[in-house]
Amino acid sequence: MRTREACAALDAADPLHSRRALFALAQGDIYLDGNSLGPPPHSALERLEAAARHEWGAGLIGSWNAAGWMDLPLKLGARLSRLIGVESDEVIAIDTVTVNIFKLAGALIAREGGALAAEAGEFPTDGHVLEGLSRISGAPFHRVTADTPPSQLPDDVRVLVKSAVHYKSARIADFERWEREAAARGIAIIWDLSHATGLVNLKLKAWGAKYAVGCGYKFLNGGPGAPAFLYCARDEIARLEHPVSGWLGHKQPFEFEDGYAPADGIGRWRTSSPSILALSALDGALDAYDGVDMALVEAKAQVLGDILLERAASLGLETACPGLGERRGGHVVLRHEQGYAIVQAMIARGITGDFRAPDLMRYGFNPLYLSHEEVFDAGAALAEVIETREWDQPQFTQRKAVT
Amino acid sequence: MRTREACAALDAADPLHSRRALFALAQGDIYLDGNSLGPPPHSALERLEAAARHEWGAGLIGSWNAAGWMDLPLKLGARLSRLIGVESDEVIAIDTVTVNIFKLAGALIAREGGALAAEAGEFPTDGHVLEGLSRISGAPFHRVTADTPPSQLPDDVRVLVKSAVHYKSARIADFERWEREAAARGIAIIWDLSHATGLVNLKLKAWGAKYAVGCGYKFLNGGPGAPAFLYCARDEIARLEHPVSGWLGHKQPFEFEDGYAPADGIGRWRTSSPSILALSALDGALDAYDGVDMALVEAKAQVLGDILLERAASLGLETACPGLGERRGGHVVLRHEQGYAIVQAMIARGITGDFRAPDLMRYGFNPLYLSHEEVFDAGAALAEVIETREWDQPQFTQRKAVT
Repeated sequence: MRTREACAALDAADPLHSRRALFALAQGDIYLDGNSLGPPPHSALERLEAAARHEWGAGLIGSWNAAGWMDLPLKLGARLSRLIGVESDEVIAIDTVTVNIFKLAGALIAREGGALAAEAGEFPTDGHVLEGLSRISGAPFHRVTADTPPSQLPDDVRVLVKSAVHYKSARIADFERWEREAAARGIAIIWDLSHATGLVNLKLKAWGAKYAVGCGYKFLNGGPGAPAFLYCARDEIARLEHPVSGWLGHKQPFEFEDGYAPADGIGRWRTSSPSILALSALDGALDAYDGVDMALVEAKAQVLGDILLERAASLGLETACPGLGERRGGHVVLRHEQGYAIVQAMIARGITGDFRAPDLMRYGFNPLYLSHEEVFDAGAALAEVIETREWDQPQFTQRKAVT
Repeated sequence: MRTREACAALDAADPLHSRRALFALAQGDIYLDGNSLGPPPHSALERLEAAARHEWGAGLIGSWNAAGWMDLPLKLGARLSRLIGVESDEVIAIDTVTVNIFKLAGALIAREGGALAAEAGEFPTDGHVLEGLSRISGAPFHRVTADTPPSQLPDDVRVLVKSAVHYKSARIADFERWEREAAARGIAIIWDLSHATGLVNLKLKAWGAKYAVGCGYKFLNGGPGAPAFLYCARDEIARLEHPVSGWLGHKQPFEFEDGYAPADGIGRWRTSSPSILALSALDGALDAYDGVDMALVEAKAQVLGDILLERAASLGLETACPGLGERRGGHVVLRHEQGYAIVQAMIARGITGDFRAPDLMRYGFNPLYLSHEEVFDAGAALAEVIETREWDQPQFTQRKAVT
């Protein structure tokens, strides 16, 4: 097990260490839940308040043009494109993950026919929304066994939704194999990047991926319920029409024409007016990633996870994620029958993680604001909470609603 | 024509007059574009900043429960219900107008079969999104002549989307006749309340209306692209399943089950996590409507519109909205071949309205922050701009992109 001194030495040499100052996180708090809701960068709060008071309050309706509101989904798309390894005109920040999966899968199934598929045990919305699309479109929906490779999917599948990083297990998908097998069978994969963006060094274009959606409020720190994003490879944009056609996806929205004709570029994935306040917070939040080498981010997250896993091993805790040294997606998952109470006792110490029923403790690591030393300290606290049975108090063991 | 003194006397007797102080509008500005984007109430800015800095920044993930984020769409729905004349558990603030029409129409067409319809000349998104739903579902879509009553719709129509207030003409729908004729033919009407909520004294329940969507950023002042809302009559909620089924509409979202089972109440119209920042701004904005009698609001808007129409008559301007004394929905529309330049010249004087091609000047009136005297002054300015040809300068006549 690494020592606290070794962790401090890693921090001293860490080019990301200074980024902690960019975040409005209370000193002393160790926040290991940024895979669920990222904390605000100062720049997000400042940008949000400027958008509200200056652009909205002073600029009023004129800000749609003067403050660039109209193009904000495209501007954010361009900023996000670097983080997922695609071109700047292939991404748009808009709507929610669920709505964006519906739009992409709806457009694909309308063009390709065939059936929809998602794996059992995925983040539920990925399958839920395909169920809904199946009902309305008549396209069959298959819920397949976890980690079924495209070569083994049912014959009629034409669209698969697949997590890049699994929300529970933290396993990272084998992008290149999946894309290769999918291409051989004419299957389109929609990657759900929710637990990957801002953490994994994604190279979607190089891996052959053409479609993806992602979340703005986890590692990207865009605020609770921040706008999602959608990626569609440039060559496919003009070949796809999504079903939730609203006026802002029109080629000429301000002609107010009755008939729908989609815009030429990535803007056709718009529906109606997005929240400018929410987009502005995300815009400010992305400043924290400016100039950051994503290879460094992923590598540091791996070490942070290993530090906690070393502690888990010394405590004899079972893990439910890739183990020490194995590549994983930004969080670790530890099993303990008193997991719920342990997570609560840790929160009382200012160390935030989350619990997933029935017995999983999930701790996530955003290398932009977490130090090696903090994660070491979290592990030491975990050891104390377990060894002294600090968790065994009514305020920790009594269940409350969990988010 | 009313005199300026008569307008001042109306203000002195106006119980809404003092509400002007609730808004962050610069002194001297006359803002006649609140039908497009409302200005911020101070309470919206304050609530937004508290949500960002305190709930998100300090409360982090715990705020989903501790700050009531999880129930915010329902809380806002309850606040909105009074403004449209329905019960508190029949409205939810969520997604966008376009997405909500898609969800309601999709759920209805799945249950009822038959065809979809919208009028020519409606706000474009109402028809655009039915086109998209038609393509994915196979349900026919009819674009019918403006103001076709339900008794004269094509036989197969089962779902009609209809504006409560027309975005261009300001005409208010004949709700009771439409609902009566629709009921006789088994047609469900989805009312688009975008240009009506916060202005018209809506009594949807009393009028027999069962379904509606509306916009948070026009008269409601919830901020650019604010969350929309959806109304579904209580008896229909359990009988409808919408197609954009996401995990937060699930009966037990935190069980993370593969199979979708919708929540029992209005919460089933959720998709995935909405922007809490955007909802919070809308929450604060609604404070401006606390205790307001909507009958007073509609009556005052009528007088404000009449004041400008009296001026238009004296100038010999053609109107493209219901005339003096006729009931209309919060804005007036004046025709002038130099309408574009006139609107620009008025904006240069601090009097904001908008232009709709080819020759329409549109001025809207929110009685919460506009006085009779201000509207009189706007009319006087309009007379000067036209009579002195103040509009005839390159900075006004040269067209820019219009929103």
